[in-house]
Amino acid sequence: MTGLFITIEGIDGSGKTTQINLLKKYIENKGFNVIFVREPGGNKISERIRKIILDVNNKEMDNIAEVLLYASSRAQLVSQVIKPELKKGSIVICDRFVDSSVAYQGFGRKIDINIIKKINNIATRHLSPDITFFLDLDPKISIERKKEQKKLDRMENEKQYFYNSVYHGYLELAKKEPERIKVIDATQNVEEIHMDMTNHLEDLINKGIYIQ
Amino acid sequence: MTGLFITIEGIDGSGKTTQINLLKKYIENKGFNVIFVREPGGNKISERIRKIILDVNNKEMDNIAEVLLYASSRAQLVSQVIKPELKKGSIVICDRFVDSSVAYQGFGRKIDINIIKKINNIATRHLSPDITFFLDLDPKISIERKKEQKKLDRMENEKQYFYNSVYHGYLELAKKEPERIKVIDATQNVEEIHMDMTNHLEDLINKGIYIQ
Repeated sequence: MTGLFITIEGIDGSGKTTQINLLKKYIENKGFNVIFVREPGGNKISERIRKIILDVNNKEMDNIAEVLLYASSRAQLVSQVIKPELKKGSIVICDRFVDSSVAYQGFGRKIDINIIKKINNIATRHLSPDITFFLDLDPKISIERKKEQKKLDRMENEKQYFYNSVYHGYLELAKKEPERIKVIDATQNVEEIHMDMTNHLEDLINKGIYIQ
Repeated sequence: MTGLFITIEGIDGSGKTTQINLLKKYIENKGFNVIFVREPGGNKISERIRKIILDVNNKEMDNIAEVLLYASSRAQLVSQVIKPELKKGSIVICDRFVDSSVAYQGFGRKIDINIIKKINNIATRHLSPDITFFLDLDPKISIERKKEQKKLDRMENEKQYFYNSVYHGYLELAKKEPERIKVIDATQNVEEIHMDMTNHLEDLINKGIYIQ
């Protein structure tokens, strides 16, 4: 693999979309080929799986079925888009990846984390991001932001204590893998957050991890 | 668990549907509560997953994504329908189950069988059928039967050598688990096949495995 694989993580409402757009422009301006995909989704089949996952009417969804649906959507995305793009030398930015499954289904829904990792290692063929940005924002704030939206999906409809567990899950993951997961203070203003992220990215590029 | 879990396996066109209907009536006539479900499907969420799996337009589907979609549909069916029904003491007849994934995705698509088993043990919470009927028919014959239908789905569109591998996969599974998997000669006439199946079923009930 010659490309660079960047993932963005965080509770809904933590400002991921804004930062992804800025990061994408930043990388493009440096003359690199950059691809952005979102999870679950990013291709025709995975977007259909996304619809099932996020449908507010699917209240009866079994927790393990949910983990497997996310993993299935991810397997399709990795094999159809991410791996071929990395092979071509592209920089791939992915909105959410395996860390989301560990944080939401593991810490949030209390499913055995080893089970989630086992399934996702199969789904991703052991592909791991080169760098992950976790946008660290108190769930109280991020949830308030989301509530201003009119239509929430099935995951966004979850309760406050669910999001607290997810949030602390992310922090635990970051503690375990500080080299890969960079915790970004998302209470800063948009430009400061962006600078934090690009500084980490430049470090990585300077270390020679990404050479086009 | 007090119920009885019966699965029917075989290549498409081996006569599963006819035999399921006869078996269902036979059990009902004995005064037992019987539930029939099909895979992939059997409930609202799993039927939506089924549509993605069988859509002829999804030619680009990744093999692992396919395994995970089947497993997800199965997890939902087991937790929402099969386990609650067995707990109530029902006899559950399921058209296809884990053996199908091993035969089609493992032997057919050459995915590591251990991976398929690992995923499915998680999906089913280690639930295994009490008895499985494999309708044994030369794939040449069963495929000819299917070709008479006008619209074939994505799986049915597979080539002859694929079905040969699936068929031999089923036979290998039956060799490994002769106590559970009963090989039924499906070249017999409908009544003979039905009698073979009910004889095995009566044996099981006489052994006291199913007591209502």
